[in-house]
Amino acid sequence: MNCVGVVDTTFARVDMARYVIEVLEKHLAGYRIVRHTVPGIKDIPAAAKRIIDMGCEGVITLGWVGPGQVDKYSYLASSIGLIILGVMTGKIIIDVTVHEDEADKPEELKRIAIHRARTHAENLVALLKGGPQALTPKAGMGIRQGYPDVGPIK
Amino acid sequence: MNCVGVVDTTFARVDMARYVIEVLEKHLAGYRIVRHTVPGIKDIPAAAKRIIDMGCEGVITLGWVGPGQVDKYSYLASSIGLIILGVMTGKIIIDVTVHEDEADKPEELKRIAIHRARTHAENLVALLKGGPQALTPKAGMGIRQGYPDVGPIK
Amino acid sequence: MNCVGVVDTTFARVDMARYVIEVLEKHLAGYRIVRHTVPGIKDIPAAAKRIIDMGCEGVITLGWVGPGQVDKYSYLASSIGLIILGVMTGKIIIDVTVHEDEADKPEELKRIAIHRARTHAENLVALLKGGPQALTPKAGMGIRQGYPDVGPIK
Amino acid sequence: MNCVGVVDTTFARVDMARYVIEVLEKHLAGYRIVRHTVPGIKDIPAAAKRIIDMGCEGVITLGWVGPGQVDKYSYLASSIGLIILGVMTGKIIIDVTVHEDEADKPEELKRIAIHRARTHAENLVALLKGGPQALTPKAGMGIRQGYPDVGPIK
Amino acid sequence: MNCVGVVDTTFARVDMARYVIEVLEKHLAGYRIVRHTVPGIKDIPAAAKRIIDMGCEGVITLGWVGPGQVDKYSYLASSIGLIILGVMTGKIIIDVTVHEDEADKPEELKRIAIHRARTHAENLVALLKGGPQALTPKAGMGIRQGYPDVGPIK
Repeated sequence: MNCVGVVDTTFARVDMARYVIEVLEKHLAGYRIVRHTVPGIKDIPAAAKRIIDMGCEGVITLGWVGPGQVDKYSYLASSIGLIILGVMTGKIIIDVTVHEDEADKPEELKRIAIHRARTHAENLVALLKGGPQALTPKAGMGIRQGYPDVGPIK
Repeated sequence: MNCVGVVDTTFARVDMARYVIEVLEKHLAGYRIVRHTVPGIKDIPAAAKRIIDMGCEGVITLGWVGPGQVDKYSYLASSIGLIILGVMTGKIIIDVTVHEDEADKPEELKRIAIHRARTHAENLVALLKGGPQALTPKAGMGIRQGYPDVGPIK
Repeated sequence: MNCVGVVDTTFARVDMARYVIEVLEKHLAGYRIVRHTVPGIKDIPAAAKRIIDMGCEGVITLGWVGPGQVDKYSYLASSIGLIILGVMTGKIIIDVTVHEDEADKPEELKRIAIHRARTHAENLVALLKGGPQALTPKAGMGIRQGYPDVGPIK
Repeated sequence: MNCVGVVDTTFARVDMARYVIEVLEKHLAGYRIVRHTVPGIKDIPAAAKRIIDMGCEGVITLGWVGPGQVDKYSYLASSIGLIILGVMTGKIIIDVTVHEDEADKPEELKRIAIHRARTHAENLVALLKGGPQALTPKAGMGIRQGYPDVGPIK
Repeated sequence: MNCVGVVDTTFARVDMARYVIEVLEKHLAGYRIVRHTVPGIKDIPAAAKRIIDMGCEGVITLGWVGPGQVDKYSYLASSIGLIILGVMTGKIIIDVTVHEDEADKPEELKRIAIHRARTHAENLVALLKGGPQALTPKAGMGIRQGYPDVGPIK
């Protein structure tokens, strides 16, 4: 049976996995969804590795990043880890992060998080079901997650 | 026999391992606890590797980071190392760090260190005993270590 | 049959792959061109790995980088990933990126993107067809992509 | 025969290896000491790898870091390399660095370098001879190299 | 037949390889010299890997780094890649870089580049012919490339 992973954290202030799982359940019939919750972003790459070792074809990770410089270094380290995992395995790993300093108002941050999680879940679905060219019709189109698309330069 | 590792440093100004071991001994009956002390944070990833090579299922590392820019680069390098170790092995590695510039008063720094060490030791216990979904009830709940939880955005 | 890969993103605001493919089709007769579109730059290294696993000899990647500090860390992480992939496989991976803060006017950004994509596609062709010394006549000549060549220091 | 490595550079302005070797000769009877000198810090990780490939159980590396931002990036890259070597091999690698901007006066810099080299050589001896808990009596004690110990927070 | 590699770029504004090859031809009789030119610094680590895969014992890489922050991140990524290659293979890789912001005047930059390339080529020769202790007489002597030696601290 195909399987797909969702990694999230207790540090995050929005339950992004809930919105991701809605998308995955709707579009990936026949896939088992494996959720794995860890404390924070630095724990995400190893969790994604454990999910890949269970035989999953793809993983979406949901990180929440604080506003300080140390948080940004943690973001960098975590990003490097997920990218190295991708380079080692070739698996599809969609790395979603929300940064606390992206918005002043919590409700705006929540809106960004939900939109970003949902649209990246759709990206994961497209790549798993449609293959390497599934997103090609949108290539160079200035697509954004969490914000309105900016579009291509005319 | 199951085993779990605790890596700490002589650079740290609080004996965080003592509080971690209290938690582990209370909740991980039947586990051997392996402690390994190294000079500073840059020595931690290789020490964690040695503990994993002894057959341990998880490791908690207790780093102490100075306030300067070079210290932050050492933090970044050490974080990358632990994350790569996690990505190579899939083991549960809880990376706890306390930064000297987190608080002005030493006693506050000590309080942060003890709380963070204890609560992350509880996270390690949960993941070892409860598996990938053990922390899922707290996913997106804005849990913090060393500070009060901030909670989810309403 | 020889194959060459083109990785691009939906985040980009210019369809750089179109210009790259024009160059590759013109100069690499007998090569199959494999395109793979992913959401953003952090997804590029794993996509390049998937293309190399299909047996391609070279890959050109087309990243678009936002103007913020977090975007630059993503650029760094992505660059490290592609470089590690190159170090692991020895394959020719030409990593093209355009940074949104390179120009004030969108039309200038588009001009940079197209020129850079085309000239780096020519670099990929040269290395694939001409071998390690194909670019040696231009060594130390101050060649630029997206801007006029600055030339050697006299 | 057991062996232990010392890697140093021609860039450094103090012959730290001399002080390190004094400590190692005094305390590691029966160990062969292998010295390897390279130009600068970016050459150190591969040199440490060569020494480990000779069968040595531990290595101490003696880096000297310039004051500029590029020097600090070189420090970061070198630190990551040594940490990855440690994570790959599990060997004990003590990474000593002195930064030219640590002190205004050269003689103070020299004092720091000698003290740091000697005390870290003692750390290497302790770990090689005493095993993973050899430094545990000093865990959390605020030990410093190059400066007076700051001690634990009361 | 022994072989040694020289990797350079079309981005550089000085043909440093010319000066390096002069030194190598003079001092490494019996070595085949393999040159490999790539577009820029991010392409260097994979090129060095290709040269090592040809059986060469050492490589000297000649990078040219722009003055902007993105250029410095590219420098960092490239440095990490070369260091990881060194840690994986144990080969001698001398990583020479010239930074455009090292000097105001182009002629001074050219002087730095030539001197640095030549003296590091001599370092490569010394390590290949003389082994791990070939540079030990200069350890801690404050040797510089591109600038006058600063000497040891008295």
